[in-house]
Amino acid sequence: MGSPELASAFLSDWHRIVAEQDLEALREILAEDVSIGAPPYWQRLEGRKLVHHLLGLIIQTIEGFSYHREWQQGGELALEFTGRVEGLDLQGIDLISLDTEGSIARLDVLIRPVNAVNALMGIITPQLATFLAEPD
Amino acid sequence: MGSPELASAFLSDWHRIVAEQDLEALREILAEDVSIGAPPYWQRLEGRKLVHHLLGLIIQTIEGFSYHREWQQGGELALEFTGRVEGLDLQGIDLISLDTEGSIARLDVLIRPVNAVNALMGIITPQLATFLAEPD
Repeated sequence: MGSPELASAFLSDWHRIVAEQDLEALREILAEDVSIGAPPYWQRLEGRKLVHHLLGLIIQTIEGFSYHREWQQGGELALEFTGRVEGLDLQGIDLISLDTEGSIARLDVLIRPVNAVNALMGIITPQLATFLAEPD
Repeated sequence: MGSPELASAFLSDWHRIVAEQDLEALREILAEDVSIGAPPYWQRLEGRKLVHHLLGLIIQTIEGFSYHREWQQGGELALEFTGRVEGLDLQGIDLISLDTEGSIARLDVLIRPVNAVNALMGIITPQLATFLAEPD
């Protein structure tokens, strides 16, 4: 688990990356074996390449992304956000576990309400399927 | 916003209430004008009577309710939980704002994945509709 200092440094990077949609820097803060628990699936998705692609799609698809309440407990973070997809308001939370180097080891994304999750996934799933069908 | 001491006292009450499904005590920790942001609707549901009924249904419907990571920042709490509905695993988070008396002023419940939210709401919605149709 990362220290509070790592978490603070991570948070300022994270907010900049999301605000600027800096996908290059996003890749650099993901651990090699990062996993994500995404809103539509129970099964976790694993590995930097896949998680980076999915997170990039989420960041680019949600409009008006803004962060609100923020909790930090050692290297465990909970970050509340709001935004819109296809005109539908949404509220979400990122639960982030940092490793000892301050990279994201584990991430869960929870979003309400269901209609916004469905709209988000309606946009992202075809792009994710195309990505998954590409040769390595 | 409640103090950290109020939040700590609240947390031990909350865990006991959920574990024992103590709906009487649940009513007592809800502020009169409490509102809830529930997984299926964007619009908030308001008032102690309605929120108490909905929370009771959620607590009684989710099986194997257990709490995990917990964050506290003044009177703002984020509580991670897992459970099952109709055999479907779920992960959720309660975002709770306490008032100055340590009662719940505002609560958001976010749950993933979507199939578990749909199963939960398939059970709860008819009961909630029956409740809403009752005269005051």
